[in-house]
Amino acid sequence: MHSTALPDFARRGGFVTAIAQDHQSGEVLMVAQMNEQAFRRTLELGEVVYWSRSRDALWRKGEQSGNTQRLVALYVDCDGDAVLLKVEQRGGAACHTGRRSCFYRQHEGDGWRDVGVKIFDPDEVYDK
Amino acid sequence: MHSTALPDFARRGGFVTAIAQDHQSGEVLMVAQMNEQAFRRTLELGEVVYWSRSRDALWRKGEQSGNTQRLVALYVDCDGDAVLLKVEQRGGAACHTGRRSCFYRQHEGDGWRDVGVKIFDPDEVYDK
Repeated sequence: MHSTALPDFARRGGFVTAIAQDHQSGEVLMVAQMNEQAFRRTLELGEVVYWSRSRDALWRKGEQSGNTQRLVALYVDCDGDAVLLKVEQRGGAACHTGRRSCFYRQHEGDGWRDVGVKIFDPDEVYDK
Repeated sequence: MHSTALPDFARRGGFVTAIAQDHQSGEVLMVAQMNEQAFRRTLELGEVVYWSRSRDALWRKGEQSGNTQRLVALYVDCDGDAVLLKVEQRGGAACHTGRRSCFYRQHEGDGWRDVGVKIFDPDEVYDK
């Protein structure tokens, strides 16, 4: 039994899994990590801030592309190591590939089919 | 650039994040982990099998409670380390607390409010 505050960042070495879902359509947009700092910043800003494992830094979603995520509602799971973020996805695309959702490949037969909805061209949006 | 097969289990030490979503309502039900064995077993059975970190064993969801998850569709994310499972949640509850979703606590003010839908009483379902 954990009696710690929620989310329980200690449970998985300082991180929780953070799932972003479109607050209207229910589409799952992406999954990333938050540490306690990212979680607090998200609540302060009302905009989603993750922790970037590749850059080892706070990552305000959409800071480069403009496709920020406005926080609409936030939930924590039963064991406290995951949060669900209902968001308004500004610009309509959560994925760095320019697609609406990062989950754009559907399993079919022995392979994967691209079923993604392309919203922007990453070559035009990100710095080289 | 990863040229490995999908999902890319090597990327996070043999595991991918697995999110289960109700295929009709879009409700996010739970998040857990899969290793390659769990992933293959899920495809073979057409029922969701996770990897239990606490038991260090394959975990066929609902094996004790009967609340199994029939796999309806499966997606992989852009960097290959997370899968989204659209499922039919048999019995209507994904959470071991007897609630429909594990994400039953919503952030409100400085605390959390239980907004969960209770489907079964865990004391009646699980062995002591």
